This record gives sequence, structure tokens and C-alpha cells, in this order.
Amino acid sequence: MQVTLNITRPCLYDATAMPDPLSILKFDDKALIPAIIQDADNKQILMFAFMNKLSLDKTVETGLCHYWSRSRGKLWLKGESSGHLQKVRSIKTDCDQDVLLIEVEQAGVACHDGYRSCFYRELSPDKSQWTTLDLPRIDPAKVYG
Amino acid sequence: MQVTLNITRPCLYDATAMPDPLSILKFDDKALIPAIIQDADNKQILMFAFMNKLSLDKTVETGLCHYWSRSRGKLWLKGESSGHLQKVRSIKTDCDQDVLLIEVEQAGVACHDGYRSCFYRELSPDKSQWTTLDLPRIDPAKVYG
Repeated sequence: MQVTLNITRPCLYDATAMPDPLSILKFDDKALIPAIIQDADNKQILMFAFMNKLSLDKTVETGLCHYWSRSRGKLWLKGESSGHLQKVRSIKTDCDQDVLLIEVEQAGVACHDGYRSCFYRELSPDKSQWTTLDLPRIDPAKVYG
Repeated sequence: MQVTLNITRPCLYDATAMPDPLSILKFDDKALIPAIIQDADNKQILMFAFMNKLSLDKTVETGLCHYWSRSRGKLWLKGESSGHLQKVRSIKTDCDQDVLLIEVEQAGVACHDGYRSCFYRELSPDKSQWTTLDLPRIDPAKVYG
């Protein structure tokens, strides 16, 4: 019996041939996508940053949030120097597929000013000033030098 | 007795001379600031959009979210045609003062696709596909025509 293998025909079950689900995401004219970072437990918004495809791939691959620093032009692992890592619990996208919402387990604090969340200022009810809602949990000078 | 009024001297208690607290906010190179919209009650993230100074001023003045449509180049009151208004409960900003976090009471749904939140797609745990988390609450064709 002769068996002919047609090795040029793509295998229907080849995992590597499956489309990358991240390919549906739309990056802006600077090749960035905004990422909203939410505490997976208490639903507090911790921070907002930008990812490029490289930092998103790293985030998905490692399960730890990586961002793209626009000012320094480099990839950064959040918490690399401070230890304040963000472990990914879920990744959502919006109807337009051009924003990410990432739920994380936050180690320590999210904010460089030492607050748990970067959103620690609220407009007062009379709209006359910004009120600080929280106290710093760490001394930024000790963590970031 | 002669009374001289120096009307060119600014009054110390003139409310219009008080600095606008919104002036600390930093708008990007397109004169926009990102706004994260959160359900004030259950802390779900409902949507993400951009405001310019005009739409932010309108939001603060009226207590209803107004945005700047980049595609249409115009101010829009969220819910103007659908009735799905967003009543502002609080406005926060982040450490860099270049992002807004607005807690709202959402009437109806936030998403044009009929879902309560625009963030209705989640990356599956095996990272192979996007899973839809919710069901549409309204028929968008009936609301938006």
C-alpha cells in the first residue's frame, strides 16, 4: 500500500496556525493601547498606563504587568525595582477593541507617590479644590531613592 | 466727603478671580484627557472616552458626562439621543494629573453594543480567544436606529 503525505497542506489542528487573539486589538498612531488597571479584589482603579504590543505580549506571557514608558522609550516591568508587582487576574477589552481593562493582584502600592492608587485626588463637592483622599502607604524616597 | 472708587483694582474676594481647579489638569498634544468611567455603585468600569476642556467644563457645570468625539469633531452629551445619561458622582485625577476617573450613576447601558459595560470581552484563561461575559441589555438597533 502506498501512502502519500502531503506535507504542504496545513494541519487543521496546528495550534501555531491559530490566529493570535491579541491581533484584534487596535493600537493608536503611536502604536500604543491604553490600559486601565483595577484591583481584582476591591475593584479600586489603581493606575492607568500605555502598552505597546511587546509589553502586552510580555504581560500575557509572564502574567505580570509590563508597560511601555513613553518618556524613557523602553519596556518596564511594573515593580521591577520596588517589588510592587501586578499579577494579572484577567484581561478585558472594550467594544472598539482599543482599550484594555486589566484586573490585578497589587503587591504594595501602585502609585509612585506612595499611595495605594494613583487616583488619590478628588474634586471637592463645591468644585473649588482637589481633596487628597488617602495617606501614602510607603515613603517613595525609600523605595525609589 | 469725596469717595474715590478704584475700579481697576481687582477685588480680593472676587470668585471669578479664584484659580480654576481644573487648570492643574494636563491635556495631551491633541488637547484631550482620557476619562475612565466607573459605576459609582458596583465599581464596574463602564467605558473609556476622551474629554477636551470644553466637555470637561460642561460635565462639571451640568453634572452629566459630556465627551469630545474625535471622529465627529464635536461635543456630545452621553445619552442625549438614547436617554442613557451618566450622572456624575465624583471626579478624581491621578498623580500626573493627566487622566480622569469619573464615578457615575449610569441610566440604562453605557455601551453602544447594548451591553451594560463596553468591557464585555475577556481573554480566556488559556489565552486562545475572547469570551463574551454578558448579554446585551437592549437592542442597539432600536435605540440608535
